Amino acid sequence: MEQERIKQQLHFLLETDKMKNILRRTVLTDQSRRETDAEHSWHLALMAMVLYEYACPHVNLDRAIKMCLIHDLIEIYAGDTFAYDVAGNQTKAVRESEAADKLYIQLPSDQGPQMRALWEEFDAMETPDAQYAAACDRLQPFLNNVATDGYTWKLGRVTRSQVYQRMDMVRIGMPPLWPFVVEEIENAVKNHELLPE
Amino acid sequence: MEQERIKQQLHFLLETDKMKNILRRTVLTDQSRRETDAEHSWHLALMAMVLYEYACPHVNLDRAIKMCLIHDLIEIYAGDTFAYDVAGNQTKAVRESEAADKLYIQLPSDQGPQMRALWEEFDAMETPDAQYAAACDRLQPFLNNVATDGYTWKLGRVTRSQVYQRMDMVRIGMPPLWPFVVEEIENAVKNHELLPE
Repeated sequence: MEQERIKQQLHFLLETDKMKNILRRTVLTDQSRRETDAEHSWHLALMAMVLYEYACPHVNLDRAIKMCLIHDLIEIYAGDTFAYDVAGNQTKAVRESEAADKLYIQLPSDQGPQMRALWEEFDAMETPDAQYAAACDRLQPFLNNVATDGYTWKLGRVTRSQVYQRMDMVRIGMPPLWPFVVEEIENAVKNHELLPE
Repeated sequence: MEQERIKQQLHFLLETDKMKNILRRTVLTDQSRRETDAEHSWHLALMAMVLYEYACPHVNLDRAIKMCLIHDLIEIYAGDTFAYDVAGNQTKAVRESEAADKLYIQLPSDQGPQMRALWEEFDAMETPDAQYAAACDRLQPFLNNVATDGYTWKLGRVTRSQVYQRMDMVRIGMPPLWPFVVEEIENAVKNHELLPE
């Protein structure tokens, strides 16, 4: 029985290897290529570790890190939806919920629902842990955009107000980072990396 | 002061973007390319979450996950050393220690040594947390080898005893997984994916 359970879990882990084939819009800081979902997930989990001192009181870092690790697993079946893709974001919730049905059933029946619940908590962005993880999820591509002179922003003809709206989770989940975000958004507008409106 | 500290930490996080350019020997399960250090680190942190029930008593999952996330950061400066590269492994300890000097000094002086100590604990593989993280670090490329008919093993002309030696950490850090490991090593020898000696 235990060996069957182990094989089921290992099969799930092999399925998640597909996260290395899902390309995001964000490019690496050297601009050589787009990053993968696996790389993004790792980077923001590390970010959660390094910037934890700026989280709101009572945020549980360990739960936030776990959310970072799993938050994009549903993209194995739902694909990545660019943050500033209006049409894609209209169908995102349904596509991702169906993907979660398909994904978490592959884990043992006591484990799949637990992991799905953690993803749903992240996705709702209502608890302090989820808000901190979501702030990292906003900050990581923002940082790479800053480091690449707005590569993705320019490509997507993104506006200042779109980025302010997207980044508001940093104001909520990691308040001391907000002045940095504002400064960099305004710099990006000045440097024509973001459209003023 | 706080904004300076934040900028230092963000600079460190941007430096770690280089983990997405370090290629390991392991190939993705679809054999399309080699995986990156960032992808590997994410995959084993997820593995630590999923397989935690098989860790030895008193293993702290949260510390183990953090070790998984940072265990290869030194490769930004030291490069990846293939597990079965005899010459490379003779110089590995010195190269990695020098890389750690260069890396962790980039964090604030209260934070860098803490993170370095966590890496050193992982690297020594003496505590239960480190042994569990190290077991995941062994199991992840093993699984990808199993799923790709021994791609890396065949390429490196790796022997059964080398893999038994390398995988011994799974026996120590995740004992219920050991029968699976033994079964797959013996299958790999039968299928000429591993040299019998």
